[in-house]
Amino acid sequence: MHYCHSNMDKTKRVCFLLLRVLALGATIAAAIVMGTSHEKSSFFTVQFEAKFSHTSAFTYFLIVNVIGGAYSLLVLFLPTESLLCRLVIAMDVVVTMLLTSGVSAALAIAYVGKKGNSYAGWLPICGQVEGYCHQVGGALATGFAGVIIYMLILLYSLHSAINPLLC
Amino acid sequence: MHYCHSNMDKTKRVCFLLLRVLALGATIAAAIVMGTSHEKSSFFTVQFEAKFSHTSAFTYFLIVNVIGGAYSLLVLFLPTESLLCRLVIAMDVVVTMLLTSGVSAALAIAYVGKKGNSYAGWLPICGQVEGYCHQVGGALATGFAGVIIYMLILLYSLHSAINPLLC
Repeated sequence: MHYCHSNMDKTKRVCFLLLRVLALGATIAAAIVMGTSHEKSSFFTVQFEAKFSHTSAFTYFLIVNVIGGAYSLLVLFLPTESLLCRLVIAMDVVVTMLLTSGVSAALAIAYVGKKGNSYAGWLPICGQVEGYCHQVGGALATGFAGVIIYMLILLYSLHSAINPLLC
Repeated sequence: MHYCHSNMDKTKRVCFLLLRVLALGATIAAAIVMGTSHEKSSFFTVQFEAKFSHTSAFTYFLIVNVIGGAYSLLVLFLPTESLLCRLVIAMDVVVTMLLTSGVSAALAIAYVGKKGNSYAGWLPICGQVEGYCHQVGGALATGFAGVIIYMLILLYSLHSAINPLLC
Protein backbone atom coordinates (compact mmCIF):
# COMPACT_ATOMS: atom_id res chain seq x y z
CA MET A 1 0.00 0.00 0.00
CA HIS A 2 1.31 3.43 -0.92
CA TYR A 3 0.57 6.52 1.08
CA CYS A 4 0.05 10.09 -0.09
CA HIS A 5 3.63 11.27 0.05
CA SER A 6 5.18 8.03 -1.21
CA ASN A 7 6.04 9.31 -4.69
CA MET A 8 8.66 11.65 -3.22
CA ASP A 9 12.26 10.78 -2.49
CA LYS A 10 13.06 9.42 0.94
CA THR A 11 14.50 12.49 2.73
CA LYS A 12 11.64 14.69 1.60
CA ARG A 13 9.10 12.09 2.60
CA VAL A 14 10.57 11.75 6.10
CA CYS A 15 10.56 15.54 6.42
CA PHE A 16 6.91 15.74 5.35
CA LEU A 17 5.81 12.92 7.65
CA LEU A 18 7.63 14.58 10.54
CA LEU A 19 5.81 17.87 9.87
CA ARG A 20 2.48 16.04 9.66
CA VAL A 21 3.11 14.24 12.97
CA LEU A 22 4.15 17.53 14.61
CA ALA A 23 0.99 19.18 13.26
CA LEU A 24 -1.09 16.32 14.63
CA GLY A 25 0.57 16.68 18.04
CA ALA A 26 0.20 20.47 18.17
CA THR A 27 -3.47 20.57 17.13
CA ILE A 28 -4.53 17.75 19.47
CA ALA A 29 -2.54 19.22 22.35
CA ALA A 30 -4.08 22.66 21.75
CA ALA A 31 -7.57 21.15 21.75
CA ILE A 32 -6.94 19.18 24.96
CA VAL A 33 -5.34 22.10 26.84
CA MET A 34 -8.21 24.40 25.83
CA GLY A 35 -10.86 21.76 26.54
CA THR A 36 -9.64 21.14 30.09
CA SER A 37 -9.33 24.81 31.02
CA HIS A 38 -11.61 25.76 33.85
CA GLU A 39 -11.22 27.35 37.23
CA LYS A 40 -13.51 28.13 40.15
CA SER A 41 -12.90 31.26 42.11
CA SER A 42 -14.81 33.26 44.68
CA PHE A 43 -14.94 36.98 45.15
CA PHE A 44 -16.16 37.56 48.71
CA THR A 45 -19.32 35.44 48.69
CA VAL A 46 -19.80 35.39 44.91
CA GLN A 47 -18.86 32.09 43.29
CA PHE A 48 -17.20 32.62 39.94
CA GLU A 49 -16.38 29.97 37.36
CA ALA A 50 -14.28 30.41 34.24
CA LYS A 51 -14.55 27.80 31.51
CA PHE A 52 -13.65 27.75 27.82
CA SER A 53 -17.26 27.04 26.81
CA HIS A 54 -18.36 30.42 28.20
CA THR A 55 -16.58 32.10 25.28
CA SER A 56 -17.64 31.31 21.71
CA ALA A 57 -14.18 32.10 20.33
CA PHE A 58 -12.56 29.50 22.62
CA THR A 59 -15.15 26.89 21.62
CA TYR A 60 -14.42 27.68 17.96
CA PHE A 61 -10.67 27.34 18.66
CA LEU A 62 -11.29 23.90 20.18
CA ILE A 63 -13.42 22.77 17.22
CA VAL A 64 -10.97 23.87 14.51
CA ASN A 65 -8.09 22.20 16.35
CA VAL A 66 -10.04 18.94 16.58
CA ILE A 67 -10.76 19.23 12.82
CA GLY A 68 -7.06 20.00 12.16
CA GLY A 69 -5.98 17.02 14.28
CA ALA A 70 -8.42 14.63 12.60
CA TYR A 71 -7.31 15.83 9.15
CA SER A 72 -3.60 15.47 10.05
CA LEU A 73 -4.25 11.89 11.17
CA LEU A 74 -6.27 11.13 8.04
CA VAL A 75 -3.55 12.40 5.69
CA LEU A 76 -0.93 10.18 7.37
CA PHE A 77 -2.90 7.09 6.35
CA LEU A 78 -4.48 8.18 3.08
CA PRO A 79 -3.66 5.78 0.22
CA THR A 80 -2.13 7.31 -2.93
CA GLU A 81 -4.83 5.95 -5.19
CA SER A 82 -7.67 7.79 -3.49
CA LEU A 83 -9.13 10.92 -5.04
CA LEU A 84 -8.69 12.72 -1.71
CA CYS A 85 -4.94 12.35 -2.01
CA ARG A 86 -4.89 14.58 -5.07
CA LEU A 87 -6.82 17.19 -3.14
CA VAL A 88 -4.36 17.22 -0.23
CA ILE A 89 -2.82 20.62 -1.06
CA ALA A 90 -6.26 22.22 -1.50
CA MET A 91 -7.40 20.72 1.82
CA ASP A 92 -4.16 21.92 3.43
CA VAL A 93 -5.10 25.46 2.36
CA VAL A 94 -8.55 25.18 3.94
CA VAL A 95 -7.29 23.58 7.18
CA THR A 96 -4.54 26.21 7.50
CA MET A 97 -7.10 28.98 7.10
CA LEU A 98 -9.40 27.36 9.68
CA LEU A 99 -6.59 27.00 12.23
CA THR A 100 -5.44 30.58 11.57
CA SER A 101 -8.93 31.94 12.16
CA GLY A 102 -9.37 29.87 15.34
CA VAL A 103 -6.12 31.09 16.88
CA SER A 104 -6.77 34.72 15.86
CA ALA A 105 -10.30 34.81 17.26
CA ALA A 106 -9.23 33.19 20.55
CA LEU A 107 -6.20 35.48 20.81
CA ALA A 108 -8.35 38.59 20.30
CA ILE A 109 -10.66 37.56 23.17
CA ALA A 110 -7.78 36.43 25.40
CA TYR A 111 -6.19 39.86 24.91
CA VAL A 112 -9.36 41.56 26.18
CA GLY A 113 -9.48 39.08 29.08
CA LYS A 114 -5.92 40.01 30.01
CA LYS A 115 -5.90 43.77 29.37
CA GLY A 116 -9.59 44.68 29.29
CA ASN A 117 -10.96 47.49 27.14
CA SER A 118 -11.58 50.67 29.08
CA TYR A 119 -13.47 52.36 26.20
CA ALA A 120 -16.07 49.59 26.10
CA GLY A 121 -16.06 49.20 29.90
CA TRP A 122 -14.85 45.59 29.71
CA LEU A 123 -12.71 44.77 32.73
CA PRO A 124 -9.83 42.27 32.59
CA ILE A 125 -10.69 38.99 34.30
CA CYS A 126 -7.24 37.37 34.52
CA GLY A 127 -6.64 38.75 38.00
CA GLN A 128 -9.51 36.62 39.38
CA VAL A 129 -8.80 33.40 37.46
CA GLU A 130 -5.07 33.34 36.94
CA GLY A 131 -4.70 29.57 36.45
CA TYR A 132 -7.41 29.57 33.79
CA CYS A 133 -5.70 32.43 31.96
CA HIS A 134 -2.37 30.64 31.97
CA GLN A 135 -3.95 27.48 30.61
CA VAL A 136 -5.71 29.39 27.81
CA GLY A 137 -2.37 31.07 27.06
CA GLY A 138 -0.74 27.64 26.76
CA ALA A 139 -3.50 26.43 24.43
CA LEU A 140 -3.02 29.54 22.26
CA ALA A 141 0.75 29.06 22.07
CA THR A 142 0.30 25.40 21.07
CA GLY A 143 -2.38 26.37 18.54
CA PHE A 144 -0.06 29.00 17.10
CA ALA A 145 2.67 26.36 16.71
CA GLY A 146 0.13 24.25 14.79
CA VAL A 147 -0.56 27.18 12.43
CA ILE A 148 3.16 27.71 11.80
CA ILE A 149 3.66 23.97 11.08
CA TYR A 150 0.73 24.03 8.63
CA MET A 151 2.16 27.10 6.93
CA LEU A 152 5.48 25.25 6.53
CA ILE A 153 3.69 22.17 5.13
CA LEU A 154 1.83 24.37 2.67
CA LEU A 155 4.88 26.32 1.50
CA TYR A 156 6.92 23.11 1.25
CA SER A 157 4.13 21.35 -0.73
CA LEU A 158 3.94 24.31 -3.09
CA HIS A 159 7.68 24.30 -3.55
CA SER A 160 7.70 20.54 -4.26
CA ALA A 161 4.68 20.63 -6.55
CA ILE A 162 5.78 23.61 -8.60
CA ASN A 163 9.53 23.04 -8.84
CA PRO A 164 9.87 19.24 -8.70
CA LEU A 165 13.30 19.41 -10.32
CA LEU A 166 14.72 22.17 -8.19
CA CYS A 167 14.50 20.62 -4.74
CA MET B 1 6.57 44.05 -20.86
CA HIS B 2 5.11 40.81 -19.56
CA TYR B 3 3.22 40.61 -16.31
CA CYS B 4 3.05 37.83 -13.77
CA HIS B 5 0.14 35.89 -15.20
CA SER B 6 1.05 36.43 -18.86
CA ASN B 7 2.27 32.90 -19.55
CA MET B 8 -1.29 31.57 -19.14
CA ASP B 9 -3.87 31.37 -21.87
CA LYS B 10 -6.15 34.36 -22.36
CA THR B 11 -9.35 33.23 -20.59
CA LYS B 12 -7.48 32.10 -17.53
CA ARG B 13 -5.49 35.30 -17.42
CA VAL B 14 -8.60 37.46 -17.58
CA CYS B 15 -10.15 35.38 -14.81
CA PHE B 16 -7.05 35.79 -12.64
CA LEU B 17 -6.81 39.53 -13.25
CA LEU B 18 -10.49 39.92 -12.41
CA LEU B 19 -9.99 38.06 -9.11
CA ARG B 20 -6.95 40.23 -8.30
CA VAL B 21 -8.88 43.43 -9.03
CA LEU B 22 -11.80 42.22 -6.91
CA ALA B 23 -9.38 41.37 -4.09
CA LEU B 24 -7.85 44.84 -4.37
CA GLY B 25 -11.30 46.44 -4.19
CA ALA B 26 -12.48 44.33 -1.26
CA THR B 27 -9.37 44.84 0.90
CA ILE B 28 -9.15 48.59 0.27
CA ALA B 29 -12.91 49.02 0.84
CA ALA B 30 -12.69 47.02 4.09
CA ALA B 31 -9.79 49.19 5.28
CA ILE B 32 -11.59 52.45 4.43
CA VAL B 33 -14.92 51.42 5.99
CA MET B 34 -13.14 50.30 9.17
CA GLY B 35 -10.88 53.37 9.21
CA THR B 36 -13.77 55.83 9.02
CA SER B 37 -15.89 54.11 11.69
CA HIS B 38 -16.52 56.31 14.67
CA GLU B 39 -19.53 57.60 16.51
CA LYS B 40 -20.13 59.96 19.39
CA SER B 41 -22.92 59.21 21.78
CA SER B 42 -23.99 60.44 25.17
CA PHE B 43 -25.51 58.50 28.02
CA PHE B 44 -27.18 61.02 30.32
CA THR B 45 -24.32 63.46 30.85
CA VAL B 46 -21.53 61.04 30.01
CA GLN B 47 -19.95 61.61 26.59
CA PHE B 48 -19.10 58.37 24.89
CA GLU B 49 -17.05 57.90 21.73
CA ALA B 50 -16.62 54.68 19.77
CA LYS B 51 -13.75 54.46 17.31
CA PHE B 52 -11.96 51.58 15.62
CA SER B 53 -8.61 52.58 17.15
CA HIS B 54 -9.97 51.87 20.66
CA THR B 55 -9.89 48.15 19.86
CA SER B 56 -6.58 46.49 18.94
CA ALA B 57 -8.30 43.81 16.87
CA PHE B 58 -9.96 46.43 14.65
CA THR B 59 -6.64 48.25 14.18
CA TYR B 60 -5.03 44.92 13.23
CA PHE B 61 -7.90 44.30 10.76
CA LEU B 62 -7.24 47.71 9.15
CA ILE B 63 -3.49 47.07 8.90
CA VAL B 64 -3.78 43.61 7.30
CA ASN B 65 -6.32 44.91 4.79
CA VAL B 66 -3.99 47.76 3.82
CA ILE B 67 -1.19 45.18 3.40
CA GLY B 68 -3.53 42.94 1.36
CA GLY B 69 -4.58 45.87 -0.82
CA ALA B 70 -0.99 47.02 -1.43
CA TYR B 71 0.05 43.46 -2.28
CA SER B 72 -2.91 42.99 -4.68
CA LEU B 73 -1.91 46.21 -6.47
CA LEU B 74 1.75 45.19 -6.61
CA VAL B 75 0.96 41.79 -8.14
CA LEU B 76 -1.09 43.41 -10.93
CA PHE B 77 1.99 45.28 -12.14
CA LEU B 78 4.78 42.86 -11.30
CA PRO B 79 6.90 42.02 -14.36
CA THR B 80 7.35 38.31 -15.16
CA GLU B 81 11.12 38.49 -15.03
CA SER B 82 11.30 39.57 -11.40
CA LEU B 83 12.18 37.08 -8.70
CA LEU B 84 9.09 38.16 -6.75
CA CYS B 85 6.87 36.87 -9.52
CA ARG B 86 8.03 33.31 -8.87
CA LEU B 87 7.19 33.77 -5.21
CA VAL B 88 3.64 34.93 -5.92
CA ILE B 89 1.94 31.72 -4.76
CA ALA B 90 3.98 31.64 -1.54
CA MET B 91 3.14 35.31 -0.90
CA ASP B 92 -0.53 34.56 -1.66
CA VAL B 93 -0.45 31.96 1.12
CA VAL B 94 0.98 34.47 3.62
CA VAL B 95 -1.40 37.29 2.62
CA THR B 96 -4.42 34.95 2.77
CA MET B 97 -3.41 33.87 6.29
CA LEU B 98 -2.94 37.50 7.38
CA LEU B 99 -6.36 38.52 6.03
CA THR B 100 -7.98 35.45 7.62
CA SER B 101 -6.49 36.28 11.01
CA GLY B 102 -7.52 39.95 10.75
CA VAL B 103 -11.14 39.13 9.95
CA SER B 104 -11.33 36.42 12.64
CA ALA B 105 -9.89 38.61 15.38
CA ALA B 106 -12.16 41.54 14.50
CA LEU B 107 -15.20 39.25 14.24
CA ALA B 108 -14.52 37.74 17.67
CA ILE B 109 -14.45 41.22 19.26
CA ALA B 110 -17.44 42.47 17.25
CA TYR B 111 -19.41 39.45 18.50
CA VAL B 112 -18.70 40.42 22.12
CA GLY B 113 -19.60 44.04 21.28
CA LYS B 114 -22.94 42.85 19.90
CA LYS B 115 -23.87 40.09 22.37
CA GLY B 116 -21.65 40.79 25.35
CA ASN B 117 -20.33 38.04 27.61
CA SER B 118 -22.29 37.68 30.82
CA TYR B 119 -19.77 35.26 32.40
CA ALA B 120 -16.98 37.83 32.11
CA GLY B 121 -19.28 40.74 32.91
CA TRP B 122 -18.71 42.39 29.53
CA LEU B 123 -21.81 44.28 28.43
CA PRO B 124 -22.78 44.69 24.77
CA ILE B 125 -22.14 48.22 23.50
CA CYS B 126 -24.04 48.13 20.20
CA GLY B 127 -27.20 49.55 21.80
CA GLN B 128 -25.37 52.82 22.53
CA VAL B 129 -23.47 53.19 19.25
CA GLU B 130 -25.64 51.54 16.64
CA GLY B 131 -24.25 53.37 13.61
CA TYR B 132 -20.69 52.46 14.60
CA CYS B 133 -21.68 48.81 14.97
CA HIS B 134 -23.29 48.72 11.55
CA GLN B 135 -20.23 50.27 9.96
CA VAL B 136 -17.91 47.74 11.64
CA GLY B 137 -20.26 44.99 10.44
CA GLY B 138 -19.95 46.32 6.88
CA ALA B 139 -16.16 46.38 7.15
CA LEU B 140 -16.18 42.78 8.41
CA ALA B 141 -18.43 41.60 5.57
CA THR B 142 -16.17 43.30 2.99
CA GLY B 143 -13.06 41.87 4.66
CA PHE B 144 -14.64 38.42 4.62
CA ALA B 145 -15.31 38.80 0.88
CA GLY B 146 -11.59 39.63 0.48
CA VAL B 147 -10.64 36.42 2.32
CA ILE B 148 -12.94 34.32 0.10
CA ILE B 149 -11.48 35.93 -3.06
CA TYR B 150 -7.95 35.21 -1.84
CA MET B 151 -8.90 31.62 -1.08
CA LEU B 152 -10.22 31.29 -4.65
CA ILE B 153 -7.03 32.84 -6.08
CA LEU B 154 -4.96 30.41 -4.04
CA LEU B 155 -6.97 27.30 -4.98
CA TYR B 156 -7.05 28.38 -8.62
CA SER B 157 -3.27 29.04 -8.65
CA LEU B 158 -2.67 25.62 -7.12
CA HIS B 159 -4.93 23.98 -9.67
CA SER B 160 -3.16 25.77 -12.55
CA ALA B 161 0.33 25.15 -11.21
CA ILE B 162 -0.18 21.48 -10.42
CA ASN B 163 -2.39 20.34 -13.30
CA PRO B 164 -1.39 22.65 -16.18
CA LEU B 165 -2.73 20.19 -18.75
CA LEU B 166 -6.05 19.49 -17.08
CA CYS B 167 -7.56 22.97 -17.04
